[in-house]
Amino acid sequence: MDDIVIVFKERPSLREPILIEGLPGVGNVGKLAAEHLVDQLKAVKFAEVFSKFFPPQVLVNDAGTIRLVSNELFYVKREDYPNDLIILVGDYQGLTPDGQYELADRTLRMAKEMGVRRIYTLGGYGLGRMIEKPRVLGAATDLELVEEMKTHGVTFSKGEPGSGIVGASGLLLGLGNLYDMRSACLMGETSGYFVDPKGAQAVLEVLARILNVKIDFKELESKAEQIDMITSKLRETEPPPEPKREDLGYIG
Amino acid sequence: MDDIVIVFKERPSLREPILIEGLPGVGNVGKLAAEHLVDQLKAVKFAEVFSKFFPPQVLVNDAGTIRLVSNELFYVKREDYPNDLIILVGDYQGLTPDGQYELADRTLRMAKEMGVRRIYTLGGYGLGRMIEKPRVLGAATDLELVEEMKTHGVTFSKGEPGSGIVGASGLLLGLGNLYDMRSACLMGETSGYFVDPKGAQAVLEVLARILNVKIDFKELESKAEQIDMITSKLRETEPPPEPKREDLGYIG
Amino acid sequence: MDDIVIVFKERPSLREPILIEGLPGVGNVGKLAAEHLVDQLKAVKFAEVFSKFFPPQVLVNDAGTIRLVSNELFYVKREDYPNDLIILVGDYQGLTPDGQYELADRTLRMAKEMGVRRIYTLGGYGLGRMIEKPRVLGAATDLELVEEMKTHGVTFSKGEPGSGIVGASGLLLGLGNLYDMRSACLMGETSGYFVDPKGAQAVLEVLARILNVKIDFKELESKAEQIDMITSKLRETEPPPEPKREDLGYIG
Amino acid sequence: MDDIVIVFKERPSLREPILIEGLPGVGNVGKLAAEHLVDQLKAVKFAEVFSKFFPPQVLVNDAGTIRLVSNELFYVKREDYPNDLIILVGDYQGLTPDGQYELADRTLRMAKEMGVRRIYTLGGYGLGRMIEKPRVLGAATDLELVEEMKTHGVTFSKGEPGSGIVGASGLLLGLGNLYDMRSACLMGETSGYFVDPKGAQAVLEVLARILNVKIDFKELESKAEQIDMITSKLRETEPPPEPKREDLGYIG
Repeated sequence: MDDIVIVFKERPSLREPILIEGLPGVGNVGKLAAEHLVDQLKAVKFAEVFSKFFPPQVLVNDAGTIRLVSNELFYVKREDYPNDLIILVGDYQGLTPDGQYELADRTLRMAKEMGVRRIYTLGGYGLGRMIEKPRVLGAATDLELVEEMKTHGVTFSKGEPGSGIVGASGLLLGLGNLYDMRSACLMGETSGYFVDPKGAQAVLEVLARILNVKIDFKELESKAEQIDMITSKLRETEPPPEPKREDLGYIG
Repeated sequence: MDDIVIVFKERPSLREPILIEGLPGVGNVGKLAAEHLVDQLKAVKFAEVFSKFFPPQVLVNDAGTIRLVSNELFYVKREDYPNDLIILVGDYQGLTPDGQYELADRTLRMAKEMGVRRIYTLGGYGLGRMIEKPRVLGAATDLELVEEMKTHGVTFSKGEPGSGIVGASGLLLGLGNLYDMRSACLMGETSGYFVDPKGAQAVLEVLARILNVKIDFKELESKAEQIDMITSKLRETEPPPEPKREDLGYIG
Repeated sequence: MDDIVIVFKERPSLREPILIEGLPGVGNVGKLAAEHLVDQLKAVKFAEVFSKFFPPQVLVNDAGTIRLVSNELFYVKREDYPNDLIILVGDYQGLTPDGQYELADRTLRMAKEMGVRRIYTLGGYGLGRMIEKPRVLGAATDLELVEEMKTHGVTFSKGEPGSGIVGASGLLLGLGNLYDMRSACLMGETSGYFVDPKGAQAVLEVLARILNVKIDFKELESKAEQIDMITSKLRETEPPPEPKREDLGYIG
Repeated sequence: MDDIVIVFKERPSLREPILIEGLPGVGNVGKLAAEHLVDQLKAVKFAEVFSKFFPPQVLVNDAGTIRLVSNELFYVKREDYPNDLIILVGDYQGLTPDGQYELADRTLRMAKEMGVRRIYTLGGYGLGRMIEKPRVLGAATDLELVEEMKTHGVTFSKGEPGSGIVGASGLLLGLGNLYDMRSACLMGETSGYFVDPKGAQAVLEVLARILNVKIDFKELESKAEQIDMITSKLRETEPPPEPKREDLGYIG
């Protein structure tokens, strides 16, 4: 079989679409954000991506029917804007480094054919500690785009993320360079301990300003409250940790 | 060499055959069931599948001769039924995710060429605890088939299996969709601690109803008794675990 | 680059050669035996096998020059015998299952082109305990060859080796079947704890009878004495283990 | 995508260039040395190597822009010398054995096309203990080159390195043989515990004599002092280890 199989349900004709990616990762921030965007903008599924770089697994839904693990592509037509949208979500990223490269490259090739020239990738930035008000950190393919992102409230902080960006959110930018695409990665701060709707909301608030769309956050907020309840219960059962000096720096 | 080599001993002409798969897995339920079916229906071997996705290993039989690890394909001609049968058994599943995909896809391609339109995959559903009367859980490619399976005594239970179906039993359904095949997976409950002939019998009892065949279970029952003797001896040497509340729910 | 690169120094014309394989494995029995055979029969190197299935490594000899890790092929012309010999030795087996398959298949293809119809693979059979007089266990592609091996003193013992034969020594037999080659594997018993010249000698004594050649074992015997000295010193520093009942069975 | 993508910024015409490789490894000795050489000789970048054998990762620089992890090729034109230089540096070596082979082979093919006939690979030789005055150990493709290296102060020591040379520094020599390239590996002794500018300087001092170039070591020396300060602080917090007999042998 082909390494990657894209099954198109529809071949939409889109006006210079912007590609938005949100796949599983740290705190599932990118996936939560992109799926919420699909819901809010009533995006239409037009393609499914299957690949032997994903696990050999089917998922079973409540009715007892199965579906092969996949990535999915949705589109949004926007009459009053110069750019339509393509949104990439999915169950998994590629399992191996070469799988990651192949999947990102195949996505970029398809994006190029559909006229994409700009990509926003969404992800989490794991802090390893609880965070009250997550910032959105950024990285971009060029300095002009860095400046543009700053005007939308994205933080660019020297040495963050120190180890670079691993996985689809990074590769689509890095390989995208070879396809002449200008792109930015938006990373919501997250503890990384839980699925994090708060980090996802922070990312989406920035993206909403960039795309000039309105997004209702009620559902994400209610998910965040549930997570907060669980984590506060967990904290009650343990004594609070002594504040460390470096933590105090964030209280000011 | 080719990634997968199928050596045909015979090219049987079959009437819209149903493919039944039972390869090693949890409790070896699927493998035991499919092998018992081969014995009972006096199925005829027509092909061997060798692959570099299997371990680099030969098995040595009691006489001192070797055979390369493989999967094997058998057929059953059924004069009084509209469908003949193909049964897939074997020593191993593919060792890697991409090997799993390649093997499932190659099997499906061959099945398509031989006229297969329906697949039943057999497996175990590991509970992590001893089980007296194993149920048979199901998953299928479409709702109509889910309903049909229910009439044969298959249980469809929301959230089971929670993590989906991994390996050949899942992939043949998931990839089979791309080949327009309607298929179901039958999973016999099993502790997963031992090779489990009881789970295999439960699965075969359902499959016998679906295929409308008679199966003698003496041999499986005698294997199950041997396993029971071993496990009860093991239990005698250890003090019984305290019953937990959630366990009591099953006593009713 | 090609997955496997065979560099021929010479293209010898051989009369229906017998292929003998001895690569690293349990107790390095096969490698020791095959290398000793190369020395004793003054075999001539005619090809080197390089492969990306081997480690990315060069070895440095005492003079400071390097060589890339490889397998090597030697030939022996035997005027008074119907069969010449090809001997395969080397630094490594393939690192991955598919590498093992590719290397065995490439070896078999080359062997077929050179007229090989019979293969003897040499290996160790790990017992996990010290052994005074190693037997040579066997496995073969057909019953006739099993009987022939018995006349040369090879032991065929039901259930040994229980897990089959893993690696090149097994694959050359198993895949060799697809090339119509009749072959046997000779496995010298070994503790598996040390490089084991005694096991190698046991294997070579059998092979010498099969091939009808004379082999001087002085060098292997002297290596075995060195190993014995080391292991007896190790045993002195530890109290002797209590004899177990199953061990006593071998004293008789 | 292709397994390896080389993006040329320029196609320089060079006179029988010498290839110098320094990629990450033990103590990062090779990488530090090659990068310092690039700085000192004001080498010009002419190509970037991207590959799915590298991690799926982008690095983020201080300004917030990203670059895909890569290897980089620089050239140095030397009017008064018969040989120009090509210097290979980078973020990573190949992640897998076959990736290592493919990358080394691709590098050699490109080098051949550009007229390279001599390679020097730079690396570290890990001792597992602190070292005051690192020697530079060598290995080469032929005895003549071994002798030549000795005149430049390279140590060739029987049994060092005992396990051969693993990775790009070894493969470029080993595979280079198949491209008729005469090459040497220079290994600076290093503890292997830290990034080691001292080992890098030792290697570069030898290479400077070989290439007949002048190199200012101030920057490496200052980096070495920083490392020394850190390690001496670490040692103060621990009691000094008892000298062992084998260590004393080095004091004499």
